[in-house]
Amino acid sequence: MHNDRNKILVDSIKRLLRRGAVTHLRKIVNKTHAADLSIVFRSLPLVNQHKLFNMIEDVEHKGILFSELEENILLDLIEAMNFDDVVVILEHMPTDDVADLIGKLPGDKSDALLEAMKNEGSEEVEGLLSYDDDTAGGIMVPDFIAIKEDTTAKEVIESLQNENLDVEMPFYLYVVDEYERLVGVSSLRQLVVVHSATPIKEFMTTDVFSVQTDMDQEEVAKIVARYDILAVPVVDETNKLVGIVTVDDVIDIFRAEATEDILRMAGVGEEYIETRSVLSSTRIRLPWLFASCLGGVIAFFIINMFEENLIKFAYLAAFIPIIMGMGGNVGTQSSTIVVRGLATGRINIRDFWPVVIKELTVGLLLGIVYGLLIGVVAQFQYSKQMLAISVGLAVLTSMSVAALVGSLVPMLFARIHVDPAVATGPFVTTSIDIISVYFYFQISAILLGI
Amino acid sequence: MHNDRNKILVDSIKRLLRRGAVTHLRKIVNKTHAADLSIVFRSLPLVNQHKLFNMIEDVEHKGILFSELEENILLDLIEAMNFDDVVVILEHMPTDDVADLIGKLPGDKSDALLEAMKNEGSEEVEGLLSYDDDTAGGIMVPDFIAIKEDTTAKEVIESLQNENLDVEMPFYLYVVDEYERLVGVSSLRQLVVVHSATPIKEFMTTDVFSVQTDMDQEEVAKIVARYDILAVPVVDETNKLVGIVTVDDVIDIFRAEATEDILRMAGVGEEYIETRSVLSSTRIRLPWLFASCLGGVIAFFIINMFEENLIKFAYLAAFIPIIMGMGGNVGTQSSTIVVRGLATGRINIRDFWPVVIKELTVGLLLGIVYGLLIGVVAQFQYSKQMLAISVGLAVLTSMSVAALVGSLVPMLFARIHVDPAVATGPFVTTSIDIISVYFYFQISAILLGI
Repeated sequence: MHNDRNKILVDSIKRLLRRGAVTHLRKIVNKTHAADLSIVFRSLPLVNQHKLFNMIEDVEHKGILFSELEENILLDLIEAMNFDDVVVILEHMPTDDVADLIGKLPGDKSDALLEAMKNEGSEEVEGLLSYDDDTAGGIMVPDFIAIKEDTTAKEVIESLQNENLDVEMPFYLYVVDEYERLVGVSSLRQLVVVHSATPIKEFMTTDVFSVQTDMDQEEVAKIVARYDILAVPVVDETNKLVGIVTVDDVIDIFRAEATEDILRMAGVGEEYIETRSVLSSTRIRLPWLFASCLGGVIAFFIINMFEENLIKFAYLAAFIPIIMGMGGNVGTQSSTIVVRGLATGRINIRDFWPVVIKELTVGLLLGIVYGLLIGVVAQFQYSKQMLAISVGLAVLTSMSVAALVGSLVPMLFARIHVDPAVATGPFVTTSIDIISVYFYFQISAILLGI
Repeated sequence: MHNDRNKILVDSIKRLLRRGAVTHLRKIVNKTHAADLSIVFRSLPLVNQHKLFNMIEDVEHKGILFSELEENILLDLIEAMNFDDVVVILEHMPTDDVADLIGKLPGDKSDALLEAMKNEGSEEVEGLLSYDDDTAGGIMVPDFIAIKEDTTAKEVIESLQNENLDVEMPFYLYVVDEYERLVGVSSLRQLVVVHSATPIKEFMTTDVFSVQTDMDQEEVAKIVARYDILAVPVVDETNKLVGIVTVDDVIDIFRAEATEDILRMAGVGEEYIETRSVLSSTRIRLPWLFASCLGGVIAFFIINMFEENLIKFAYLAAFIPIIMGMGGNVGTQSSTIVVRGLATGRINIRDFWPVVIKELTVGLLLGIVYGLLIGVVAQFQYSKQMLAISVGLAVLTSMSVAALVGSLVPMLFARIHVDPAVATGPFVTTSIDIISVYFYFQISAILLGI
């Protein structure tokens, strides 16, 4: 339904552009939310993007659109724009979005823009740029309401009315001491409810969650999600309040991290963007397949070692797909469960052995069931007991080893602080292929007495 | 870091339980956030869960813990508790959480609880239970601030001060007409800033996003995320305001949907919970592997059809793993990109052919590169040109078909409104295995003149 609305919007805008219906276009563009315009921009050539962008009257609307646009579209658009126009827009954007944008631009351009923005918040932007992208400091906004402990409710309301406060999340009122250290939090709601002469320190909550600037963004997101709060204050090492991370950024972090994990597990590379060209898509996916290619070559040499077996018993080859397939699928199950469990906090790295042993046991049980089943199929087809036993044992071994490798590798990676999702994709699958093939031929060589 | 804190908490509580240090335990339990206590409960036997639960003094704290606990723990705990105590706690919980909880209980228990709660919001709970779980109606809270159009800012503030409003998200003030139809929205912040005699209809925003009760929860979540709002109002078919969906629920939806997609793609079944026993884990994973087993058996019969080839040229078997592996990995890449693209809205179902053709082209290009590479390896190893060409062509075919199937199947599933993630797991991989093996032996039969 929502997709339909976008489709209608894109179609109308394209039609109006063809007809050159400027008045009508101008009306639509100024009425449409920037998030929706950013979808429209994806389907338009640069020249039309530029045309529509110039029709936007409100400079803040332009700023929000800047924040919503995809990186490659944004960079092209900025390249095509007048430098001074860009500066004016940046000056009307929230500091954290400016910092994000500046971070994406080439060095000379970003320096020039920061220079031009002087005295218009560029110091704050430079402050934000000094933190790592993926930390609380990198994602926080430095705009928040900080109030001294002795201020009364009435004074707070007055200051909210007088000052033209430009804050993103005006629902929490942070209370600081004389050194700007965070000591408590209150809310607009409490402010409205208490007697107007009460100083804020008497009705604030002192039990306030805060995070340090260097905390990983995923940890920050988990805290916000866990305690159902709308924003978490960020403090420096002296507990001085320096910014807040808001819940809308937390949503973006969770969605981005989930996409990153999924793409990594599929061996696509986390940087993949669906809208890229065929050639750049191919380039990004090419190297990830190399692991699997190398694994295939190794499996090839292993089978070659057993060429005599194959010459004697050609039908051995017919079981290669099922043995590899069963191992591969159990391995994918195990590694996915572990990777996602680690990401959602349901699995703890400290439970290393319990997790691995549980997966191994499940793999063994599944291996017994499918080993028997496939062994019976082999027996029916060839009526050779030793062959049936070889195939059954190979399935059992392949599935158990797969569950072991599939859980052990991501747990190990997590322990040495490498993203376990990276481990899961081609690496686990490929090593399981090699191990499965090796055990299969080794077992059959022994049992068939070759 | 956050994980460490939990570990310390769990360890201290276990130690204090062993020592029977009741006073100390009581202090910790009442000071700890329910979200953290729910983690502690995971590691404790029921008798100790019960003991700790009874130490909680604030009944609302108990209610939040009810909402935070995992389903199986919660059900056991409620079973072990006094019926009347449960009723009292439910009466102090937000209506949507009560509805969730009641929905999980066996029929007789839930009826008895609803009966006992009469006149204490049980009608609201029953109202919520009438909506589908996965819709806006199923996840909304019926507690919000609704204000008539002509109310002045001062009157609103007074009513906020006098009434003991129990709402989850008191930041948005929804404005309704005489028929309770949603006409606008304002915020506490605007209330504080405007002149006190201004009626709310003069400073409210009339351009308000709302969703209907039957909208899918994932769509609702996307709207909240897209427009960076903290809550979205839910209306019935007459535009009457009936509830709101808050941003904290949206976070939970996104995380749950991502986990569901990942588990489905890995063929684990979306209901998987890491904490289950070995036997129930095995039971859940067993049927998903059957597709792959069936596919393996089919591949087995296909290879059997070509047994003559294998008897003449035993080394053909050595290339089976690499041809299957390359196809399988490209197929996983393509299907993952499509499934995640559809989930995040970057790919639209309407772009059916552009998406499929793009994936096919990428698969072809990747197939050319790796087909050449693996063909060269074959040539070096055996110095048989026709074999090298067969293997190269088989890799090319396998990778192109895999990209085609990997993108086509989830797009088709999405079009007929079946979750594309289901399609991606064992189904796509297995069909690619079969197709790859068939083409490989068919190509080599022709080129090697068997």
